Amino acid sequence: MELINPADHLDKVAELFDQGMAFDKVIGLKVEQYDPTGAKLTFVAKPELIGNPIHKILHGGVIATALDVAGAAVTFAAALARMPAMPEQQLNEKLARMSTIDLRVDYLRPGWGKQFTVTSHIIRTGTKVAVARMELHNEQDTHIAFGTGTYMVG
Amino acid sequence: MELINPADHLDKVAELFDQGMAFDKVIGLKVEQYDPTGAKLTFVAKPELIGNPIHKILHGGVIATALDVAGAAVTFAAALARMPAMPEQQLNEKLARMSTIDLRVDYLRPGWGKQFTVTSHIIRTGTKVAVARMELHNEQDTHIAFGTGTYMVG
Amino acid sequence: MELINPADHLDKVAELFDQGMAFDKVIGLKVEQYDPTGAKLTFVAKPELIGNPIHKILHGGVIATALDVAGAAVTFAAALARMPAMPEQQLNEKLARMSTIDLRVDYLRPGWGKQFTVTSHIIRTGTKVAVARMELHNEQDTHIAFGTGTYMVG
Amino acid sequence: MELINPADHLDKVAELFDQGMAFDKVIGLKVEQYDPTGAKLTFVAKPELIGNPIHKILHGGVIATALDVAGAAVTFAAALARMPAMPEQQLNEKLARMSTIDLRVDYLRPGWGKQFTVTSHIIRTGTKVAVARMELHNEQDTHIAFGTGTYMVG
Repeated sequence: MELINPADHLDKVAELFDQGMAFDKVIGLKVEQYDPTGAKLTFVAKPELIGNPIHKILHGGVIATALDVAGAAVTFAAALARMPAMPEQQLNEKLARMSTIDLRVDYLRPGWGKQFTVTSHIIRTGTKVAVARMELHNEQDTHIAFGTGTYMVG
Repeated sequence: MELINPADHLDKVAELFDQGMAFDKVIGLKVEQYDPTGAKLTFVAKPELIGNPIHKILHGGVIATALDVAGAAVTFAAALARMPAMPEQQLNEKLARMSTIDLRVDYLRPGWGKQFTVTSHIIRTGTKVAVARMELHNEQDTHIAFGTGTYMVG
Repeated sequence: MELINPADHLDKVAELFDQGMAFDKVIGLKVEQYDPTGAKLTFVAKPELIGNPIHKILHGGVIATALDVAGAAVTFAAALARMPAMPEQQLNEKLARMSTIDLRVDYLRPGWGKQFTVTSHIIRTGTKVAVARMELHNEQDTHIAFGTGTYMVG
Repeated sequence: MELINPADHLDKVAELFDQGMAFDKVIGLKVEQYDPTGAKLTFVAKPELIGNPIHKILHGGVIATALDVAGAAVTFAAALARMPAMPEQQLNEKLARMSTIDLRVDYLRPGWGKQFTVTSHIIRTGTKVAVARMELHNEQDTHIAFGTGTYMVG
């Protein structure tokens, strides 16, 4: 039976977040950079992501989604990187059991912009639970939102 | 100049959340019930709202969006209900300045289901800031998520 | 070797929170009621618990402490109640590894009063992580604060 | 009537947090550095601040208190710095109305140490609401906890 090496675990997670999650595609999230210490994703403004119709700014739910995905991506990747080589099905099962426990979003400024970048890094690692901090900026590097997520990773 | 009475302010907010926000339509959120003490919204499961492709459950971002909208709806409505009659443009401007300050989501159980109901009620009222608690259940009344949101309302 | 039965696990946790934690004694927290689904603790107003010297209200840190302890008490108790009989040392070790992962406090009204009651109940159970919601009221049943805590329990 | 200039507003806030709050003295919090963009406070380990009696680590409530005070200090200071000169009584009244709306604490590592430093900086400014991020380190620069606080400042 073919095993997937830890070195390739990351590709599986990136694939999941990039292609596997239907709602990520609705937002248009793209994984730009990805390793066990940080993740960087981008998405482009489009009419269906608008919340406030007068100000034409991002919906708070779009911001929460982008932050949650960036936090999940980095904590899931870090957890998989510590696991041994395993068959693909087992890897998928482990990944399917990982989930967000809680998420906090601090909305700092209105979500104006054309292209958005969300970054994440781990602030607490563990075999069962990991915590990440996330940030959302627009193309002018305006800091739009902060996030903190606690994730089940084992 | 025609003024909108406080009694009709609620209809304006309901209209905004029901029709005005593009991303609410992506989720398919419908305002079912609405008064200054609580709001009830529903949405129906559909393929593009899926997060985990193995378990076919709601994306955490969809849950965060639904909770945020329910909290905003009730806190914005309560704030407008306390304001005097005013012209529509002024009402729209006031509404456009209301926003989420921060949001916390506690994911309790996987988001399985066919139809989802999100309810909200106010736990702190004020002329500037209001706080709401929100809950998401599926059609079998399984409690899927809790939320707490702090909103700028004046 | 003598084992402590699950039926007696609760007493160990109550003892820890009632007597074992030095800072709980600073606040004056007393465990009034305790079972694996909920906890109730009380404490009495005293000068050293004051924050705002003009309004003579509870310090926000006192409120956060009381909420955190109530949440830890119920989630730790529920986790121990599910474990088999074990020697006291092992029980203590398990208890010592339990901890707060994150805590959110919503301050609803000024902390006026003579006697305060903090209650907690579990909203998410698990073998590794549990989440509790907590409330603080004064002797007139004024609702002063809400809390949500995520705890490592295994 | 003598007015207190904005340049001296900071001293009033520092005095309040350093001397005026009874519970701050229980913890032993000392204001080390203070300006409208950041605050730095320290406190020393002592037996009554212990939570877990086996591990001899800081009680989670002590950590929450220190983080909350550091966040309040910087956001209150920034708000006062923007206000005009005013009589002392008016300044005290304004300060007395400032308060924590909500607080989130992420406990990253056990609270071991002899001396603790808590720092804060503002991530959202406003005339009504401000948001700060806080960090707690021990004397070996081990990062023990993160905090985020939303404060009513006007």
